[in-house]
Amino acid sequence: MAIHFELIYEDPKTGARLGRLSTPHGTIETPAFMPVGTLGTVKAMTPEELEALGAQIVLANTYHLWLRPGEDVVREAGGLHRFMHWSRPILTDSGGFQVFSLKERRRIEEEGVYFASHLDGRPLFLSPEKSIAIQNALGADIIMAFDECPPYPADRAYVEASLERTLRWAERSLRAHRRPKEQSLFGIIQGGTFPDLRRRAAKAVVSLDFPGYAVGGLSVGEPKPVMYAMLEETVPLLPRTKPRYLMGVGSPDALIEGVMRGIDLFDSVLPTRIARNGALMTSGGRLVIRNEAYARDFSPLDPACDCYACRHYTRAYVRHLLKSDEILGLRLTTIHNLAFLLRFMADVRRHIRAGTLLEFRDAFYEAYYGRMPAHRGF
Amino acid sequence: MAIHFELIYEDPKTGARLGRLSTPHGTIETPAFMPVGTLGTVKAMTPEELEALGAQIVLANTYHLWLRPGEDVVREAGGLHRFMHWSRPILTDSGGFQVFSLKERRRIEEEGVYFASHLDGRPLFLSPEKSIAIQNALGADIIMAFDECPPYPADRAYVEASLERTLRWAERSLRAHRRPKEQSLFGIIQGGTFPDLRRRAAKAVVSLDFPGYAVGGLSVGEPKPVMYAMLEETVPLLPRTKPRYLMGVGSPDALIEGVMRGIDLFDSVLPTRIARNGALMTSGGRLVIRNEAYARDFSPLDPACDCYACRHYTRAYVRHLLKSDEILGLRLTTIHNLAFLLRFMADVRRHIRAGTLLEFRDAFYEAYYGRMPAHRGF
Repeated sequence: MAIHFELIYEDPKTGARLGRLSTPHGTIETPAFMPVGTLGTVKAMTPEELEALGAQIVLANTYHLWLRPGEDVVREAGGLHRFMHWSRPILTDSGGFQVFSLKERRRIEEEGVYFASHLDGRPLFLSPEKSIAIQNALGADIIMAFDECPPYPADRAYVEASLERTLRWAERSLRAHRRPKEQSLFGIIQGGTFPDLRRRAAKAVVSLDFPGYAVGGLSVGEPKPVMYAMLEETVPLLPRTKPRYLMGVGSPDALIEGVMRGIDLFDSVLPTRIARNGALMTSGGRLVIRNEAYARDFSPLDPACDCYACRHYTRAYVRHLLKSDEILGLRLTTIHNLAFLLRFMADVRRHIRAGTLLEFRDAFYEAYYGRMPAHRGF
Repeated sequence: MAIHFELIYEDPKTGARLGRLSTPHGTIETPAFMPVGTLGTVKAMTPEELEALGAQIVLANTYHLWLRPGEDVVREAGGLHRFMHWSRPILTDSGGFQVFSLKERRRIEEEGVYFASHLDGRPLFLSPEKSIAIQNALGADIIMAFDECPPYPADRAYVEASLERTLRWAERSLRAHRRPKEQSLFGIIQGGTFPDLRRRAAKAVVSLDFPGYAVGGLSVGEPKPVMYAMLEETVPLLPRTKPRYLMGVGSPDALIEGVMRGIDLFDSVLPTRIARNGALMTSGGRLVIRNEAYARDFSPLDPACDCYACRHYTRAYVRHLLKSDEILGLRLTTIHNLAFLLRFMADVRRHIRAGTLLEFRDAFYEAYYGRMPAHRGF
């Protein structure tokens, strides 16, 4: 087995889980957030900096690495871990989400998807077999089945047909997988925002017996209560003993609500992307550092934070760097947001263990969003 | 005295000097190269990374910091050292070079220079008094007199008139200086490519008794032999006991030729700027990492280098990062080029001490440029 998941504790009040996910490149304490390193680098960061912040695993994008530098280059380099100098676990997505984000000139067929490169427009084709072959070449610890992520909103007939195809693609992904002893292939549960389709997808994917399961097709524009409702339909149908991954989620509220619905893994570009736009996640909520108000503010980005950026620099300086398009500005805001979110997840794990997750959630919502949770279902 | 210069050794064969320049923020072993941090940050680097590479002093640009974030913000932050989290020495230029690089809508008068902001075109005015006031607010250890840097080529009448004005501006800079106990004001010797004007400028500036002297207006397009000839006219007229700074020079050949003509300090954006364009300074000469030839080259950027980039990454990976516009690519190439050039200067100091500078120069030229020095004057 390429991975082993140990379920350490389940919170009887919320359903939150503590786990330990062992992979060929090390162990991940769950629930965990995975920073995204699209092209084999978490933007602006070194691997050592990520490790120092407590990142346990990073996600890389199959579609992007297929186009640049090409999976052959990565394989010849000795695999993605060596290529990018990251010795801890890696998860690659299947490319499905990226392909379906490219809405123009895309044609979905049973065999796979025909589409145009976002770089130069040249025609490309991706299928379950191709996606898995690329992921086998990249060599991540966890790889994902090739799926279709339907847009939101989408009508029921479309989502149902898409789901059936995604289930057939899941079987083909399993059959195409050449390195099951080194790489664990996760199945993905789609079904849009239709509860019965979500349940049908969960049962069908689970019947294929993957070593882990992802909930896909959420956080794509639907209201958050809908996302949470879909988790409540899906997660109870997943085996307790296998890891569960909610794809594309990185806002603190959705992380904690996902954890309380039994999710173990999350990924999102959110903390790193908003960092480069100057939006900081702080103990007092979001802070837009480019604002004039911070021009002469010589306090740290977040007084409650002990990250490198907060220890040594002021809001005025970081604002100056971002206004001047300086690379160090992008580095400092990225470091801070990842420090914030990875510490947040460590806090979540600690409060699960202590049985105080609900109290932590309520206090966090009040400090960060200035309100109580909209969903008091626990 | 804000600074103290100790002349440790003069090489009888070449005129190269070893010195120790003490400032309120630490001591610099000379000859030294100063990385440029235009806006209060050496692009892509943290101060800790600079220190680890052996950077002893950085240069910041008065004109740029005046516009953004404004010298008042820097003063309120506690000065530039605190603002940018750099506790070692800083030198600020006078803004003269930047202003004279903006050729459009510029009017030079006796009082100062009227010109338009490169950011938004608004009218600006810089004079010796204004430049020194800004530099006093920034608080660098070494500050520079406000001067005019004539273009190359320029006719003799223009250069002569410019030089006379620069001499008057040097006196005004001295009178305007409000913090001589904390900041040392260096005079600048101009004179274009006219030997007698260079000599006249040197004598006149030296008669004003600055704590250090810069040779300006070189490396602006003239052939290198002309630059070296101008140094040979100028440097012998400078007092042995004071530091000498050749402005805007950062190519290895010009550094070593400058050292052999008695220069102690250099600055240039060259290593950092070409790094961001993917040009690497290596033990085998310049290497353009974006070239297709490196797509599957899994060797280090420079096999002879022990910098962070060369220890952990391959040419193929760094090429991929630069081709993909990834920030980490800019970080790695910048780290490498600064490591290369700062180590080069440490080698130069070591070979001065050992009496083997000429041999080092000849071997370096052959390895780096594939030829012997064009100037065998020593």
